[in-house]
Amino acid sequence: MAKAIDEFNQYREEMDQRILRSEHLGIKRFFALDHQAYEDGVLDSKTKELLGLVASIVLRCDDCITYHVLQCVKQGVKREEFLEVFNVALVVGGSITIPHLRRGFERLDAAIEDVQP
Amino acid sequence: MAKAIDEFNQYREEMDQRILRSEHLGIKRFFALDHQAYEDGVLDSKTKELLGLVASIVLRCDDCITYHVLQCVKQGVKREEFLEVFNVALVVGGSITIPHLRRGFERLDAAIEDVQP
Amino acid sequence: MAKAIDEFNQYREEMDQRILRSEHLGIKRFFALDHQAYEDGVLDSKTKELLGLVASIVLRCDDCITYHVLQCVKQGVKREEFLEVFNVALVVGGSITIPHLRRGFERLDAAIEDVQP
Amino acid sequence: MAKAIDEFNQYREEMDQRILRSEHLGIKRFFALDHQAYEDGVLDSKTKELLGLVASIVLRCDDCITYHVLQCVKQGVKREEFLEVFNVALVVGGSITIPHLRRGFERLDAAIEDVQP
Amino acid sequence: MAKAIDEFNQYREEMDQRILRSEHLGIKRFFALDHQAYEDGVLDSKTKELLGLVASIVLRCDDCITYHVLQCVKQGVKREEFLEVFNVALVVGGSITIPHLRRGFERLDAAIEDVQP
Amino acid sequence: MAKAIDEFNQYREEMDQRILRSEHLGIKRFFALDHQAYEDGVLDSKTKELLGLVASIVLRCDDCITYHVLQCVKQGVKREEFLEVFNVALVVGGSITIPHLRRGFERLDAAIEDVQP
Repeated sequence: MAKAIDEFNQYREEMDQRILRSEHLGIKRFFALDHQAYEDGVLDSKTKELLGLVASIVLRCDDCITYHVLQCVKQGVKREEFLEVFNVALVVGGSITIPHLRRGFERLDAAIEDVQP
Repeated sequence: MAKAIDEFNQYREEMDQRILRSEHLGIKRFFALDHQAYEDGVLDSKTKELLGLVASIVLRCDDCITYHVLQCVKQGVKREEFLEVFNVALVVGGSITIPHLRRGFERLDAAIEDVQP
Repeated sequence: MAKAIDEFNQYREEMDQRILRSEHLGIKRFFALDHQAYEDGVLDSKTKELLGLVASIVLRCDDCITYHVLQCVKQGVKREEFLEVFNVALVVGGSITIPHLRRGFERLDAAIEDVQP
Repeated sequence: MAKAIDEFNQYREEMDQRILRSEHLGIKRFFALDHQAYEDGVLDSKTKELLGLVASIVLRCDDCITYHVLQCVKQGVKREEFLEVFNVALVVGGSITIPHLRRGFERLDAAIEDVQP
Repeated sequence: MAKAIDEFNQYREEMDQRILRSEHLGIKRFFALDHQAYEDGVLDSKTKELLGLVASIVLRCDDCITYHVLQCVKQGVKREEFLEVFNVALVVGGSITIPHLRRGFERLDAAIEDVQP
Repeated sequence: MAKAIDEFNQYREEMDQRILRSEHLGIKRFFALDHQAYEDGVLDSKTKELLGLVASIVLRCDDCITYHVLQCVKQGVKREEFLEVFNVALVVGGSITIPHLRRGFERLDAAIEDVQP
């Protein structure tokens, strides 16, 4: 599973570079805005990553969930905090989010193990 | 506009009572879970309301946005913090969320005025 | 409210006729397919209207909900049966469907009154 | 393919247990509500599973479709009835649901074979 | 109805100015990207507005549909071309888009009248 | 990757034939409408395929994206034109579409290689 995360990160980076090398100005600027949206500001980066995670779950995007789970783990989000975010997402988004929560849990356990073995 | 918020609150309460009076156990329990999801826990209530707001914007539900804007104002969320949540939602959800942000801004200004006239 | 339903029906019919008079063959055929999908078959029309209703709620389309609530009332669906469909939709689609359930309840009460005053 | 269904069931059960062992009360209660929504009531369990299936298709969730196809087969839903549910879902949800219908058909054939070899 | 379009344009402009005056850099840049995405490039502005229209219909956003209908009329898109875009959107997005097509047709007729009285 | 496209095409054709052999009249007619929507008309087939592509991206359906990328390549859509469609889709649909754009880029490169080696 740590392997699954490595593969995700590698594919993500490789494709993002391929997209950015295509030199479309609009797309490059969008990627910059996306990056900046989660930087420390009036709200700190950790809170913003939690926002990104809940948005990813209710919109049901597995890759986005994996990405924000990893970012949240880096920001020191604890397992108990993840559970509360998952709960808000589950109540807002309904049972249709459950398959994504299953994969999110799997990614979370692997990511926490990686960081705190 | 403060009038618009009053009407929203009144309709919301009246219909929720009508729904709960219908005595369907599953629906009643869902409404209880929905309420509890935003209570103080490992994450505080303010953070959870921000989560509810961002989820409402990316899922593009005007009534849900109005509700969570009001809850956030009650929790003391400042205008600058709202802007950063709106920005995350806009980047994640795209320009299709803009009409909802327009109405969200309108509700926000009215709600802040009400509380801090 | 019965008035709200009358207005909905009138607008719906008027616009559908305007759309069909535009003589686009693909659109006309789609409207025919849409109509036929709810006719008696291996599953009866009542069951298919329940399917249409639950799909409309989880996809959060107020006009579609109003339409299928009216069709279900015509098919003799009882208030207790509506509650169970609403409950499935609420669990599958989450709290984001609640504003649509509020309006669905309002339409339902008005529609039942109309038919069984 | 029967193997694919076995793997799906195994992963689903394993992850659901891991999620429930995490002891978050809100999540546990949601899972209970989800289970109860499909039990016999004023509408029978078979009809409710059809509702769950159509909701899963229009919301385009492959795992949810697989799950409800299996439940429907257990409830004795016949191939002809599945086709009519697929048709309602296709008309309501549009051609964007077709890739999910392809996988749904594949699961359905495998599931029917398993039960009635 | 021409009045409805005037009111839409006025509200849209007023709120966009209020949002931009809030001086959040990320939001301002997003609005600029949104504007630039429809400018003449390798694809001309007319084709891009058609893309914006079909995306707005399948995502079921009334305000976005109104906006792109108006832009398309300005670009000289003819009624017959609109019908073909509506047809693609209807087939891809399903009957759940029909209420939005009704309102889209209404806006279209009003917009064409305004421009070619 | 050319292999991935071959497998996609083979699975797609096999399942579509299985679905059509099931002889449900509504489903067969829907598949015919779907096919006809992209034929030359007032708008040419190339423009309609671009519409199908942008709709597939904002609705986030990988298989639909692959299909329309292939159709667009057949219609002679150039890499620079794809980039502008991707940009419109990214702005309208937000960062949640990025994982689909990654896979879309991968398919695009493979498809162009196949056709213009």
